[in-house]
Amino acid sequence: MAKLPVSPLAPFEFPSIQPVPGVEFGTVCTGIRYKERPDLLMVVFPENTVAAGVFTRSKAPAAPVDWSRAALAATGGKARCLLVNAGNANAFTGKKGDEAALSSAEMAAEVVGCSTSEVLLASTGVIGQPLNVSSFKKFLPIINSGLSGVLWKDAAAAISTTDTFPKGCCKVAEIDGQQVIISGIAKGSGMIAPDMATMLGFVFTDAPVSSECLQAILSEATEKSFNATTVDGDTSTNDTVMAFATGVKGTIITDPADPKLAGFKAQFTALMIDLAQQVVRDGEGATKFITITVEGAEDAAAAKKIALTIANSPLVKTAIAGEDANWGRIVMAVGKSGEAADRDKLQIWIGGQHVAKDGMVLPSYSEEQASAHMKEQEIDIRVHVGIADGTATVWTCDLTHGYISINADYRS
Amino acid sequence: MAKLPVSPLAPFEFPSIQPVPGVEFGTVCTGIRYKERPDLLMVVFPENTVAAGVFTRSKAPAAPVDWSRAALAATGGKARCLLVNAGNANAFTGKKGDEAALSSAEMAAEVVGCSTSEVLLASTGVIGQPLNVSSFKKFLPIINSGLSGVLWKDAAAAISTTDTFPKGCCKVAEIDGQQVIISGIAKGSGMIAPDMATMLGFVFTDAPVSSECLQAILSEATEKSFNATTVDGDTSTNDTVMAFATGVKGTIITDPADPKLAGFKAQFTALMIDLAQQVVRDGEGATKFITITVEGAEDAAAAKKIALTIANSPLVKTAIAGEDANWGRIVMAVGKSGEAADRDKLQIWIGGQHVAKDGMVLPSYSEEQASAHMKEQEIDIRVHVGIADGTATVWTCDLTHGYISINADYRS
Repeated sequence: MAKLPVSPLAPFEFPSIQPVPGVEFGTVCTGIRYKERPDLLMVVFPENTVAAGVFTRSKAPAAPVDWSRAALAATGGKARCLLVNAGNANAFTGKKGDEAALSSAEMAAEVVGCSTSEVLLASTGVIGQPLNVSSFKKFLPIINSGLSGVLWKDAAAAISTTDTFPKGCCKVAEIDGQQVIISGIAKGSGMIAPDMATMLGFVFTDAPVSSECLQAILSEATEKSFNATTVDGDTSTNDTVMAFATGVKGTIITDPADPKLAGFKAQFTALMIDLAQQVVRDGEGATKFITITVEGAEDAAAAKKIALTIANSPLVKTAIAGEDANWGRIVMAVGKSGEAADRDKLQIWIGGQHVAKDGMVLPSYSEEQASAHMKEQEIDIRVHVGIADGTATVWTCDLTHGYISINADYRS
Repeated sequence: MAKLPVSPLAPFEFPSIQPVPGVEFGTVCTGIRYKERPDLLMVVFPENTVAAGVFTRSKAPAAPVDWSRAALAATGGKARCLLVNAGNANAFTGKKGDEAALSSAEMAAEVVGCSTSEVLLASTGVIGQPLNVSSFKKFLPIINSGLSGVLWKDAAAAISTTDTFPKGCCKVAEIDGQQVIISGIAKGSGMIAPDMATMLGFVFTDAPVSSECLQAILSEATEKSFNATTVDGDTSTNDTVMAFATGVKGTIITDPADPKLAGFKAQFTALMIDLAQQVVRDGEGATKFITITVEGAEDAAAAKKIALTIANSPLVKTAIAGEDANWGRIVMAVGKSGEAADRDKLQIWIGGQHVAKDGMVLPSYSEEQASAHMKEQEIDIRVHVGIADGTATVWTCDLTHGYISINADYRS
């Protein structure tokens, strides 16, 4: 497949990311699918690093998802190594897929010097083709001999598939007077939907938190970030977000509700939202970044369901692609969500303009003003459904000819 | 908007449809939206005609949907007139929308000589623009003076919007030795999804059934027909399917389980499936008609949910548009459905070829043979999920550049 042009919604440049002491990376080109770029990432962690994970809710998960779930359970949330390959998802590969996962974990464990279950795995790429890991025997020692703590952009690039730009983010926070670093990378551009972790994302920190505490913080942040985004409503077999904490900065905190963690949790969530939005900005064929806020719903969950129904509607997404302020399709999507909405109290704002009130378009509505907003790259839609106080915000992109071209022509 | 080319999946010609004695039609061009074709249909029924309806489950239904639901409840399922306008949905039009519905029913009742609640309404078209029915005062007597029982194609054309061909079907059945006629028309090509009635469909028969009996037969047939189809997963504010029985052919039957109705119910359902498939064949931008059968699910409802998840997946639909036998995306959709599926027992057939078994692609799989099938217009996908005996079949179309063009450029 020809290289895709960089998304028009991409950030200006890859951000500056601070190393997390003790966390080291290496990448290599295995040639499993990509011949001219690294497609295997190994991350090595210091002893006592704790780990947490959120995985696809697919009923047909890939072998590496099964592996990482089981490994985290077996170790109680410890990790010394993360191994990620791009180009082959090792999904729908039967018993051979499980064997490939086990074999790659064994090889990594030998190189790193840890137990097999301290190796976590993730894969992304083509579904249904056997993953041959025999070359890892040769490549893993090569990676291990050249590890570095600063190769964030290379790491982000090595886990990408149809991504048109590498995705990373860094935040700092204070815990009990100590500065901690939170650095993360992600990949994803299609087969992106909520109701799961939605892509690959890895977050690294030196914060002193226990594995249970990290898991709680990760799960909550996932709901507000990756699970509040959608590109096409599709759900991968491989979606994985994992977080790793080396725990060197102070006394380990075990209670996620500990007030000392307030600032850390806020920055952790902000980083997750930033990464999730980068994935949406790389949505296949995307030309518009769309923020949808729903207010006045029965509760926050109902608001999120309505917002995601609008975000996933092909008719809404194509109207936005066509720069058409077609609020009738927003009304349709609100009705389709199945959540309570008062048709005769419904209000809609597009780009800040009050379009409809009391279930009717306002006499003051300016089609010209709405059209001007629709020509921008960042589209804002706000809906009030007139029931109660539930609120939610989600992010999506438009549905364009580019999406069709990429997906009708490419076996991803 | 320029006239769209006729769908490549359209039937060769409009079928021959038998009149239902006493049921008469008329159409007129009101100019409300369309200037050069009829956009208002009036159907007049003989006394003692019973009616049944299935309506959108949208939480923001259009005014005519509210009207018809209430009218059927008020009369206990009687009807003397059906009035349908195309081009303006009378949806999201607030109190003025309710007034327009009442006013048009009053005018029709006066012309036909029946009570207002014996007039049923349906609208389709643009959402959010006030429907001005004042011209109906002039047009309804004109229609009424030229009624005919044979104008099926004109009737089907008058209720269409972005449809590229008129949709009709006729079946005959025997009830207690008497031949009865079942004739129907439908419209729809986008904003089509199950979980509701999904478009406009009207079925007329001279069968001797009570309104409750007709309602039961209509509801059951809807589940197997319109509610088993999807174009884009979107849900209109106006979807309506209504059935009318003049009841002249014999003694009225009140029990839908009466064995005398077996043949009638089969033909009624066959007609509904035929109309529903015509709607899919007119799916916006469609180039492939796709039949998806799921077997081995927990029950029939689970099978239908899995089948519809496959049918609604943008990645599956774009792969088929690209004539790519990408069964990995089918696996993804099965996993996404949330219904039980045994990954390691999953089987897939494409165009009759056994592609995957025991959760893995078969060594015998011929990509060449699969690709040859994908080049055809009628695509068959069969999946066995390895849990129990639940089975369902649904119909959909592919997702193409044509869909994007139609929906990014047209305010429907």
